Amino acid sequence: MNPTNQGDPLIVIVSHRGPFSFTARRDGGFKLTRGAGGLVTALGALAQKHEVLWVACALSPADRAWAKLHEARPERVDGVQLRLISPNLQRHRLFYNVIANPLLWFIQHQLWDIPRAPSIDRNTWKAWEQGYTWINHLYAEVIAHTLADEQRPIIVLPQDYHLYLLPFYLREAMGERVHIQPFLHIPWPGPDAWRILPAQIRNSILIGLLSANRIGFQTDKDAFNFVQTCRFYLPDAHARGTRDTITYRGRTIRSTAYPISIDVQKVEQLAEDGRTRQHRAAFSEYLSGRQLILRVDRIEPSKNILRGLQAYRNLLESYPEHRGQVQMLALLVPSRLEVDEYQDYLRDIMGEAGLINAEFSTSTWEPVRIVVGDNYARALALMQLYDVLLVNPIADGMNLVAKEGVLVNLKNGVLVLSEHAGAFYELGDHALTVSPFDTYGTAEALHQALTMPEEERLARANKLHDIVKQADVNHWFHAQVDDALNDLSSHARKSSTPGTPGNKPSA
Amino acid sequence: MNPTNQGDPLIVIVSHRGPFSFTARRDGGFKLTRGAGGLVTALGALAQKHEVLWVACALSPADRAWAKLHEARPERVDGVQLRLISPNLQRHRLFYNVIANPLLWFIQHQLWDIPRAPSIDRNTWKAWEQGYTWINHLYAEVIAHTLADEQRPIIVLPQDYHLYLLPFYLREAMGERVHIQPFLHIPWPGPDAWRILPAQIRNSILIGLLSANRIGFQTDKDAFNFVQTCRFYLPDAHARGTRDTITYRGRTIRSTAYPISIDVQKVEQLAEDGRTRQHRAAFSEYLSGRQLILRVDRIEPSKNILRGLQAYRNLLESYPEHRGQVQMLALLVPSRLEVDEYQDYLRDIMGEAGLINAEFSTSTWEPVRIVVGDNYARALALMQLYDVLLVNPIADGMNLVAKEGVLVNLKNGVLVLSEHAGAFYELGDHALTVSPFDTYGTAEALHQALTMPEEERLARANKLHDIVKQADVNHWFHAQVDDALNDLSSHARKSSTPGTPGNKPSA
Repeated sequence: MNPTNQGDPLIVIVSHRGPFSFTARRDGGFKLTRGAGGLVTALGALAQKHEVLWVACALSPADRAWAKLHEARPERVDGVQLRLISPNLQRHRLFYNVIANPLLWFIQHQLWDIPRAPSIDRNTWKAWEQGYTWINHLYAEVIAHTLADEQRPIIVLPQDYHLYLLPFYLREAMGERVHIQPFLHIPWPGPDAWRILPAQIRNSILIGLLSANRIGFQTDKDAFNFVQTCRFYLPDAHARGTRDTITYRGRTIRSTAYPISIDVQKVEQLAEDGRTRQHRAAFSEYLSGRQLILRVDRIEPSKNILRGLQAYRNLLESYPEHRGQVQMLALLVPSRLEVDEYQDYLRDIMGEAGLINAEFSTSTWEPVRIVVGDNYARALALMQLYDVLLVNPIADGMNLVAKEGVLVNLKNGVLVLSEHAGAFYELGDHALTVSPFDTYGTAEALHQALTMPEEERLARANKLHDIVKQADVNHWFHAQVDDALNDLSSHARKSSTPGTPGNKPSA
Repeated sequence: MNPTNQGDPLIVIVSHRGPFSFTARRDGGFKLTRGAGGLVTALGALAQKHEVLWVACALSPADRAWAKLHEARPERVDGVQLRLISPNLQRHRLFYNVIANPLLWFIQHQLWDIPRAPSIDRNTWKAWEQGYTWINHLYAEVIAHTLADEQRPIIVLPQDYHLYLLPFYLREAMGERVHIQPFLHIPWPGPDAWRILPAQIRNSILIGLLSANRIGFQTDKDAFNFVQTCRFYLPDAHARGTRDTITYRGRTIRSTAYPISIDVQKVEQLAEDGRTRQHRAAFSEYLSGRQLILRVDRIEPSKNILRGLQAYRNLLESYPEHRGQVQMLALLVPSRLEVDEYQDYLRDIMGEAGLINAEFSTSTWEPVRIVVGDNYARALALMQLYDVLLVNPIADGMNLVAKEGVLVNLKNGVLVLSEHAGAFYELGDHALTVSPFDTYGTAEALHQALTMPEEERLARANKLHDIVKQADVNHWFHAQVDDALNDLSSHARKSSTPGTPGNKPSA
């Protein structure tokens, strides 16, 4: 890529899934579909201010065909320069289906049934070396090659747990002239969770990340856990009494929280969309005056759907006055059902729901209804209607359902929120917070929410609404870019200091 | 109890299981059986130097009958003053079968299948309040009552995870005049593991322990994890830059490692006992020159028996030269089989062993043999005969099998040792150490052990033998008592300092 302006930086976003997906058209061209994630949302505003290069992985045959057409250089697509890598499919499978999911995901959400799984076997080691390591290296190669003649300052923003080794390989290829600042969307647990990995893999991940300049996490707790994990496992990593800085082999790395959020404007618009209104009307009728306890999740063990059902059963047992007066609706979005753990989890959920209905239902009342499917308009409609939103994950980087819910809800509904969701740190003061393992306590919180005086509901709902309204996803992304720009300019100042005779430290 | 000598302290050991168990005799008297644990072993030497009071729980009908006879005051039994408490059986069941095992045990060994268990339900809360809390309080009451007129300095040594709240209640009842120093035999994991408990229970445990003066752990890592856990969850607990000291509400509490060990002399004697020799001869014949990979464990998910079998399978696959030349023997001691998790675990072990034998056995070779039963002479005989001792727990306070094995082995056998056994910190340098989750790496270690040159085997075996020989269980116990005595005398010095005019700090 050629320089356009030496002062203006180039922003390089690197992720596994790209901002667009392609489908082949009959005329030999490609149809473009824009993704829905927070980054893609933030991209619009960003691309107006900065030049953006996005490097991602081709995931479909059409993606790969598009990548082949544009393998020499990035191509301008919808305001950004796009570059897709096309790794060997077998290596990609090892990278994605053996290491990233489930191994890293399960470790970082602390989901393993430890007496039995995981077993780091020959296939895991192969997947680590020939899949995860290889693909991280490929990303670095492609980026270094693409930016070989780049004269502008470069800010590289690798996304999430797929790219832990990228900072190391990129630093190796490009040296200190590139500012590397990953953001991790999922939780970073304390040192113990990382004991599951053999030292060689664990240390590669830590050293990979410590090749960055600054690392972004969802919460202060994640950022602190990262510092602790490095101190625990790397004898030459030091925090020097801080909670957010590591010095490692002569370099200083910062660990910073940037809580992700939602696209407030877009969610508000969709909530008033025609389809959403239709769903709202239909479900209002279905509920026929009953109080609604809602949950909306991917089918995913970390979401703690099973204990949510147990808490609901406990509520109906302890407080029979709610029987017939309340309705639990669980909207479950299918996810990774090709993995045994996910399929078993769905089976257990359906079984538990069936047993609750078998025990408590009447001719006119179905205590809990599980709706499996993916329909965002329907979800938004129900988020407007809930009296109680149950968000009780075992572990969750942020949980955007909590933020969407409190933004669009029309009933001054109460948020029952796990203390282990990232959102806890922003919303916890005005929610009823629970330990996700405590089904008794969760049932008590549900009862408290269902019987809360209107005045208190209103006060809490308003506070929650305002918090989310004030910090949307653009804020999240620009805070990262601003810190990167500041780091870059302070680095530039420092670098030039020794060569400026007569320059005084206080000048 | 009446004072005998004002300077000589009274040592009070407090535990769930006592040093003796009673059985009713026909003549109305009681037969006494001495327990086998490390504490009981250390008691002999201790009771010659100090006056010892032991407070424990009556566990059998005969224990309870004995306790009823002696409920007014402690009774001298076999050199110690013994006091048994007899709690309500229902409360004891809640204390023991709901909270101590499995909840605390599973948390501290990090064994839960987190997406499904535990569920802290109404019964858990009841067990916490009416079982665990109540019984800890009962212990404190009995101790305070027994020691009401005691004039000597008092050192109280509560044992293990059954008595976390005892220091709090005892401090409340007796104030600062009593030195309280618990020892925790099982691992203390980092802050994350404790997230499973609701804040109220977790904080009660931490504050309970922080009512002590000093807390003993198996390793420096456990001691450090305790400090970190307190800092993480209690806003007013501070470490002030140390790794082993907490200040909490104006008091200073030390966190210290005392690695437990075995009774060297007794184990050496038993290894030359007639029954042991018989087993040794029989198994030597059975092995008929094959190399022996031995493991000896309670049937317990933390012992990682399943992954040990997977590693063995992996060995036979990767290195076919060992087929027919090696024999795995797993001696499994039944444990808690009334708990589902333990029964399921044994089923899975037997299934995996069956599959390995189905795949690899020949008309003259059974690759793995599982021996379920409790026979210490047989275990000692096989420990003398192993070429490789596999000790690969997921988590283990210490693991005494590793110490017994390297003490009595006659073949310069190699120890393959998990980096998460407490014994790792003493024996790791001369063992082949493995990540217990890494079945591939464990198979490689087994191969390395089976093919290690005799000279290296000898050098390692000698080092391991010497380490265990030099630090036996008396050393472990006296180190604790010595620290307690020092704490007491420095406390006494400090207390008297203000009242001693002209006393100089350097005097």
